[in-house]
Amino acid sequence: MEQDPGFIAAVEEAKQGAAEGGVPIGACLVSKDGKILGRGHNMRVQKGSPVLHAEMSALENSGRLPASAYEGATMYTTLSPCDMCTGACILYKIKRVIVGENKNFVGGEELLISKGKELVILDNQECKDMMAKFIKEKPEPW
Amino acid sequence: MEQDPGFIAAVEEAKQGAAEGGVPIGACLVSKDGKILGRGHNMRVQKGSPVLHAEMSALENSGRLPASAYEGATMYTTLSPCDMCTGACILYKIKRVIVGENKNFVGGEELLISKGKELVILDNQECKDMMAKFIKEKPEPW
Repeated sequence: MEQDPGFIAAVEEAKQGAAEGGVPIGACLVSKDGKILGRGHNMRVQKGSPVLHAEMSALENSGRLPASAYEGATMYTTLSPCDMCTGACILYKIKRVIVGENKNFVGGEELLISKGKELVILDNQECKDMMAKFIKEKPEPW
Repeated sequence: MEQDPGFIAAVEEAKQGAAEGGVPIGACLVSKDGKILGRGHNMRVQKGSPVLHAEMSALENSGRLPASAYEGATMYTTLSPCDMCTGACILYKIKRVIVGENKNFVGGEELLISKGKELVILDNQECKDMMAKFIKEKPEPW
């Protein structure tokens, strides 16, 4: 799954966020037939946004879609999704959540599982390193 | 509570959303000392946004705040909050959620209660009427 285009895109987004001086978390929403619907990264620093976490940016950048577009979809994200992003995945009936790592933060994983979502933790070294570096260097926005 | 400035603002926001041809749901975030931090309405139609529900707009319009700003805060919303907005209230450790009505939709109320939030359902007639009218006239965006 670390070679999935959706995961590669999520990591690229995290790097883009880091390059912008922001929180290095990226996400990508992929339809059941493998089409990238939207991708994005955390915009807390860049836009002063409390709602545009990576997963939310990916959803927002997907635009307004019919409910059917989310059926069987996968959300790739570089970090374990927080309670808000967990709720968004539940609202839109996203089927699978593929998480880069959950060593630096653990979000609503139990709720996702209780709602029948497939949850995969990749324990990806690059994701862990990016987040650890950010938390060490910029503890305030994190 | 129906006379609280936060609830009055939420209803005004819902009406503004209706006037814009959008989903008539409004919200307002109020600090523990009664200051309005942000208010907003659902922007699904206006911005084609899947994430800017009323509660999310109120959070977004509050800007980036320190965690302490949300302590003891109240989220007023005209309709029972969906799973995403429920998760956002949990993420930001909002203390109370005051809901205009839950006859037209019931969201993550059980989760809010399980997380120790104070939840009040006002069963407000104006909120019920606005939402029922919208669902009847415009079933598609709803």
